[in-house]
Amino acid sequence: MSYFSGIEKIGYEGEGSKNPFAFKHYDKSQVVLGKTMEEHLRFAVAYWHTFTADGTDPFGQGTMVRPWDKWSYLDLAKKRVEASFEFYEKLDVPFFCFHDRDIAPEGENLKETNENLDVIVSMIKDYMKTSKVKLLWNTANMFTNPRFVHGAATTSNAEVFAYAAAQVKKGLEVGKELGSDNYVFWGGREGYESLLNTDYKLEQDNIARFYHMALAYADEIGYTGQFLIEPKPKEPSKHQYDFDAATTISFLKTYDLDKRFKLNLEANHATLAGHTFEHELRVARSADMLGSIDANQGDLLLGWDTDEFPTDLYATTLALYEIVENGGLGKGGVNFDAKVRRTSFQTDDLFLAHIAGMDAFAKSLKVVEKLKEDRFFESILEERYETFSNGIGKEIVDGKADFHALEKYALTQAPIQNKSGRIELIKARLNEYLFSK
Amino acid sequence: MSYFSGIEKIGYEGEGSKNPFAFKHYDKSQVVLGKTMEEHLRFAVAYWHTFTADGTDPFGQGTMVRPWDKWSYLDLAKKRVEASFEFYEKLDVPFFCFHDRDIAPEGENLKETNENLDVIVSMIKDYMKTSKVKLLWNTANMFTNPRFVHGAATTSNAEVFAYAAAQVKKGLEVGKELGSDNYVFWGGREGYESLLNTDYKLEQDNIARFYHMALAYADEIGYTGQFLIEPKPKEPSKHQYDFDAATTISFLKTYDLDKRFKLNLEANHATLAGHTFEHELRVARSADMLGSIDANQGDLLLGWDTDEFPTDLYATTLALYEIVENGGLGKGGVNFDAKVRRTSFQTDDLFLAHIAGMDAFAKSLKVVEKLKEDRFFESILEERYETFSNGIGKEIVDGKADFHALEKYALTQAPIQNKSGRIELIKARLNEYLFSK
Amino acid sequence: MSYFSGIEKIGYEGEGSKNPFAFKHYDKSQVVLGKTMEEHLRFAVAYWHTFTADGTDPFGQGTMVRPWDKWSYLDLAKKRVEASFEFYEKLDVPFFCFHDRDIAPEGENLKETNENLDVIVSMIKDYMKTSKVKLLWNTANMFTNPRFVHGAATTSNAEVFAYAAAQVKKGLEVGKELGSDNYVFWGGREGYESLLNTDYKLEQDNIARFYHMALAYADEIGYTGQFLIEPKPKEPSKHQYDFDAATTISFLKTYDLDKRFKLNLEANHATLAGHTFEHELRVARSADMLGSIDANQGDLLLGWDTDEFPTDLYATTLALYEIVENGGLGKGGVNFDAKVRRTSFQTDDLFLAHIAGMDAFAKSLKVVEKLKEDRFFESILEERYETFSNGIGKEIVDGKADFHALEKYALTQAPIQNKSGRIELIKARLNEYLFSK
Amino acid sequence: MSYFSGIEKIGYEGEGSKNPFAFKHYDKSQVVLGKTMEEHLRFAVAYWHTFTADGTDPFGQGTMVRPWDKWSYLDLAKKRVEASFEFYEKLDVPFFCFHDRDIAPEGENLKETNENLDVIVSMIKDYMKTSKVKLLWNTANMFTNPRFVHGAATTSNAEVFAYAAAQVKKGLEVGKELGSDNYVFWGGREGYESLLNTDYKLEQDNIARFYHMALAYADEIGYTGQFLIEPKPKEPSKHQYDFDAATTISFLKTYDLDKRFKLNLEANHATLAGHTFEHELRVARSADMLGSIDANQGDLLLGWDTDEFPTDLYATTLALYEIVENGGLGKGGVNFDAKVRRTSFQTDDLFLAHIAGMDAFAKSLKVVEKLKEDRFFESILEERYETFSNGIGKEIVDGKADFHALEKYALTQAPIQNKSGRIELIKARLNEYLFSK
Repeated sequence: MSYFSGIEKIGYEGEGSKNPFAFKHYDKSQVVLGKTMEEHLRFAVAYWHTFTADGTDPFGQGTMVRPWDKWSYLDLAKKRVEASFEFYEKLDVPFFCFHDRDIAPEGENLKETNENLDVIVSMIKDYMKTSKVKLLWNTANMFTNPRFVHGAATTSNAEVFAYAAAQVKKGLEVGKELGSDNYVFWGGREGYESLLNTDYKLEQDNIARFYHMALAYADEIGYTGQFLIEPKPKEPSKHQYDFDAATTISFLKTYDLDKRFKLNLEANHATLAGHTFEHELRVARSADMLGSIDANQGDLLLGWDTDEFPTDLYATTLALYEIVENGGLGKGGVNFDAKVRRTSFQTDDLFLAHIAGMDAFAKSLKVVEKLKEDRFFESILEERYETFSNGIGKEIVDGKADFHALEKYALTQAPIQNKSGRIELIKARLNEYLFSK
Repeated sequence: MSYFSGIEKIGYEGEGSKNPFAFKHYDKSQVVLGKTMEEHLRFAVAYWHTFTADGTDPFGQGTMVRPWDKWSYLDLAKKRVEASFEFYEKLDVPFFCFHDRDIAPEGENLKETNENLDVIVSMIKDYMKTSKVKLLWNTANMFTNPRFVHGAATTSNAEVFAYAAAQVKKGLEVGKELGSDNYVFWGGREGYESLLNTDYKLEQDNIARFYHMALAYADEIGYTGQFLIEPKPKEPSKHQYDFDAATTISFLKTYDLDKRFKLNLEANHATLAGHTFEHELRVARSADMLGSIDANQGDLLLGWDTDEFPTDLYATTLALYEIVENGGLGKGGVNFDAKVRRTSFQTDDLFLAHIAGMDAFAKSLKVVEKLKEDRFFESILEERYETFSNGIGKEIVDGKADFHALEKYALTQAPIQNKSGRIELIKARLNEYLFSK
Repeated sequence: MSYFSGIEKIGYEGEGSKNPFAFKHYDKSQVVLGKTMEEHLRFAVAYWHTFTADGTDPFGQGTMVRPWDKWSYLDLAKKRVEASFEFYEKLDVPFFCFHDRDIAPEGENLKETNENLDVIVSMIKDYMKTSKVKLLWNTANMFTNPRFVHGAATTSNAEVFAYAAAQVKKGLEVGKELGSDNYVFWGGREGYESLLNTDYKLEQDNIARFYHMALAYADEIGYTGQFLIEPKPKEPSKHQYDFDAATTISFLKTYDLDKRFKLNLEANHATLAGHTFEHELRVARSADMLGSIDANQGDLLLGWDTDEFPTDLYATTLALYEIVENGGLGKGGVNFDAKVRRTSFQTDDLFLAHIAGMDAFAKSLKVVEKLKEDRFFESILEERYETFSNGIGKEIVDGKADFHALEKYALTQAPIQNKSGRIELIKARLNEYLFSK
Repeated sequence: MSYFSGIEKIGYEGEGSKNPFAFKHYDKSQVVLGKTMEEHLRFAVAYWHTFTADGTDPFGQGTMVRPWDKWSYLDLAKKRVEASFEFYEKLDVPFFCFHDRDIAPEGENLKETNENLDVIVSMIKDYMKTSKVKLLWNTANMFTNPRFVHGAATTSNAEVFAYAAAQVKKGLEVGKELGSDNYVFWGGREGYESLLNTDYKLEQDNIARFYHMALAYADEIGYTGQFLIEPKPKEPSKHQYDFDAATTISFLKTYDLDKRFKLNLEANHATLAGHTFEHELRVARSADMLGSIDANQGDLLLGWDTDEFPTDLYATTLALYEIVENGGLGKGGVNFDAKVRRTSFQTDDLFLAHIAGMDAFAKSLKVVEKLKEDRFFESILEERYETFSNGIGKEIVDGKADFHALEKYALTQAPIQNKSGRIELIKARLNEYLFSK
């Protein structure tokens, strides 16, 4: 059967096309900066937003009625798998991602839960044999079930820690079975409701122990996916431990985990933490820890995670520039951790929204190509920092200067002349790149 | 002459007192938790807010007319020194703090600027001989002068880097001369206006070089004060590099500076970064990097640094609890980096505001004493985390568990029972501690 | 049967009491400022948070298991009624509030839904006969059901408008039947997701029509409760029409509704809009439109509605001061639109949290009594604005001055002397009021 | 003499041009939607940001050195006038705006201040005779001088109220003399630092009296400019009375001023209040009170007024759409209340920044033209709200339905079907409009 009847495989029709079910910019085999668009962008569909979510919000029931909703429990899980592969095929997208609980329901106990998972993983594996779609990453949902009310690896209850360990152990086995390129940790409940009843140090120590156990087990079974942590400052927790890229890097360094982990960065999480997305990418890139991205956008006038499909070309272009400068994302990709609005509840909105997001990135990729060809940012930086390429500046950079030498220099230097940063001009020129053909 | 005529030395008169120029809670020789209040609190007056500022804001001229305003340049600087020591004496406060440019005006060039500084430092040193007040910390103002428009140690202009190095070299000499307990770096311009024209990695590398040079020079001259970095997320820069405690720790670890630096944490900077003050203190304390605090408070409905005198007892009590748990602040102290409102422009407001802040901390110290005597937080944590003190929990904490053992445990464990976090009850009980005699 | 076995009726035991199930400050028959505490505070329990909610959040399932959860549909609704009256009785609270859908489940169609409602309303009416508890207000839930995805009275679909009208018609009948003191409108979906697809003017016109129809019907059936609108800036809608008190007043004036409506103001909604709670109360009070309050508190570091029980004594005291200055709330009351944290999932937390909130207001009432007895704020204002009580100031206030007279005055006036606003002193003095008996 | 030597009159060179000192989109005589671009856009230069400001920020001294800075006091004021007219001419802009204190320095007393003003106004009038540039609006600066520390028309000091009245009286005379199209009130200090010492009601009453006096005097002297109020939520005041459009409209209606005033809306003030700019414009337009705009943009990750030149084409396009739907701005215009960054301190940045802003609006105007030609938004709304154009929907809109009729309808209506709001598709299509020629 078809879950998306009436929708054909999405094709590239170019900018002039009036067909809403066509790409205007994403021509996957087009070569840009030495690679195909598909290789650059490594798009992934998020299973939870696309096949599991129903539009529930804190004040309202689900609005979305899906063709697979008439089934339940394991049958529902199976129908979702069928639908998902039809969706990947029609959208022509190379990757997908999931949490364990997205794909299979929990059973009465861990054993039954794992058995449910086995059934669905096996089915997915079969589908993958005849599909070109691959698993970008998998992860464990350790935030929805009430047992995680006080956290998973940072819980106040050792029983929960044990359960979480078993869940991630299974997750790594699933990752190996399906060949996931990455394994992600997002700690939605790894944080605190209030410091008043929180043993911060114990909780930090415990989650570090947890990660070391995970690494040991991955090595043991030969799982070779990249480990990723996804920072988020708040929500659902009042204050999450992995607040942002820098905080997460600090944690990883403190606990000697920085060699094995990279970051999975999300646009909306960046803005909730008070940063632009490109800032978070730059921080991770500078530390050689940029692993993958969750492509979405938030609403900067709202204080919660809206997970909108990314359509702001300023943001997608600057994000993509960082990725290109990083030499790409390696095993990582561009996962649409984005949900159609609760008001966009029709099933075909799932296609329209992904097309909007994919086209935004594709358009941005073409803009980045022009920027790189023109050495746009390179020229700005070379001119702006030129004093560090010779004389006293070069001595500083080369580590040859000390306070004595610099004071001596300063006592006799000519009045200092700075140059304008030219931000307004740069923004105007960027507009020309973005909004002109 | 007297700059604060009509105001006597501020004394302790106890809670019932109606005298606004008296402490109601701060009885400096009272012993609390084994130390005098004065030893616990190590209060400092911020020179800039108290003797240099005039109430200017982005839309208005100064409103404050001070008795020393009729003088100018070096004379003005000298009168301020006189006034400051009268103020410390009358307020009966043990410490003060300054930036180099607060105490002495810049000259035509660095040489003249340093000479001005020498005159005033010499005068301060003389005053200190006959006063019990000490220098908690000094620092270099590398943000007011236009030369620092693009940063100091993270400038795009090597000429400015050299100047900044010379300025900090002098600052360390002044610190040694006056025996400052700490040397502080607050990088108001160390950040970026826009990533579009910023070489983030070069700027980070350069400021790390700068700090290593400073350490080398301090060692060379035998300056033994503690080095402190003061995080702030934004303002004046759009995005400052030392965003918060975790970000700063990450930087320090990356550049092998974490053994020599601690943090000077400010309440208002914490809230601008999206954290409570106690969170920032906890992060630093857990890393053994809590050095000193800037005591103030912000307005959480405003997005800029208001630097208000701290009067919110919830905040001061929880901050002080962290400090007590840290075993005190060592060489650090409680510096009132706080300014009277622009509308509180009368000179006696300077006393009233400091009294308000000092009394808030003193009252909080008595609350903390009661909390500690009752083992208030200790009991909460012991009960909440008790599962980690035996059985599988103890194995986890002791590093004896791995994913195999934990999965085996989880597959047969009983249904998990969590306990309520009891936050509402804890807050009600805390209210009783705070607002009952 | 008992739903809260082991919990006795909550009594007043005074400040020293260690019993968590006792009031420390709320002695309902104590006379304060001429009325009993009970008459001042008119506390109400919110049915939805206390008997219907289960701790679900956007990332997690419910954590709360209640004694009535083993029943379903109408039986569940009936058990909740039983439990609720036991709760009111034990908590000794004089009022409750509900949405129609809190108390009875929706049926297959409107007719069946109304029949369900009739069953439960009848049962509640019976309980009220033998209980002293009264209905502070009722309202219609026009935000949870998917039909309201685009709004209720501001929907883009006329079918939904008709349904909403029928629902409020029934709500007014229920209000009359149970003698509610007020009828509330909170427009959770009355706003927009995006202006891009919104006919703002039509939606505003339509909701005004809706309100006029509601007034007409209330008059027709003789419903005499006060009509209230509850402002909130956002969530669930991206932008709600009743953004804050001033916006709502503007709307009411524009559509000639201001004579019949007052405001139901919520603390957390105030802060989400960028205001203090006392600001919103002041705005409404100045317009003689302060009707009732939703007592809770938000977390100013979070951007969503946390609906915490109010324990911040600064906030509750200033809110209560506005209410006292308003001459009380008339038909309104202090409704705890507050939910126990998801982590406070035990059933007895419901009592502990209400006690925390009630005690915070009771303590505040005693503080307000002292402030009024001492004419604390009155004295501040009289001194600060004294220039408006005579001379040119009095002429201004009396409407006798014009620009000619004022210019003439200004051309010869002495240099202007302002007085300090003394905010730091006022805050310090307020602290003394708060924590001295 | 020339203040901007080396810069020629800015011309239109079209999109391909690489000349930074040329317009790429703004071709002032091009006809768009029936009017020339110049008639649509009515651009104005803000005197204060362009000729008076120097780049000072709360932590730093001015960075900008201008050719007129070597003069002082009245001579400086005169040189600024000369420079300003050269600037208008070269930028080819039709309007300018000023505060009284931007153009002339304050003297020892009001009389001297007014005399200074007379000298400069006379000079400006002379320049205007031979220039095509006109005065879009003038206003009084009642926030910089310390006398306004507690407000101007909402001051706690009647002496200040009198002074402010005299100042606005003079301002109206200046407006008449120079033929300003509008007179603006922006109440930077009209608000409060704290409610603790504020008589909110008296202050509101007083400012209403002030406005009525202003209207009376304008009528008396025959000043026919449009009166405008400019809302802003905060900064410099902690809480400003004219928080946003709705709040201001509420105030104007309360005091019977709504027939004589319109709003001057600023983008950055909108976002500080938690709104998009287009929201504020829509609110004002719906009330027929959209008067003029201050064109700039803020940084949504910062909490203060950055007044950046507008370059975000999403924002400028949606703002311009509201203006076009309003039938233009009438006497109002597009005033660049925007400042070059402190880091963009070179004098030619003033041109580059204005070009960036003007081109952004011009590009947007072309996009709006396409949107209107295609009836882009009209089609969306017609389809979305079609149920209100017939049947029960039409009865509602026509005022023929009541609760009885609607309940009767709802009891028998078919299950309600809503339609998707299609936001993702709309955003994708809007992107196509923005970046396709």
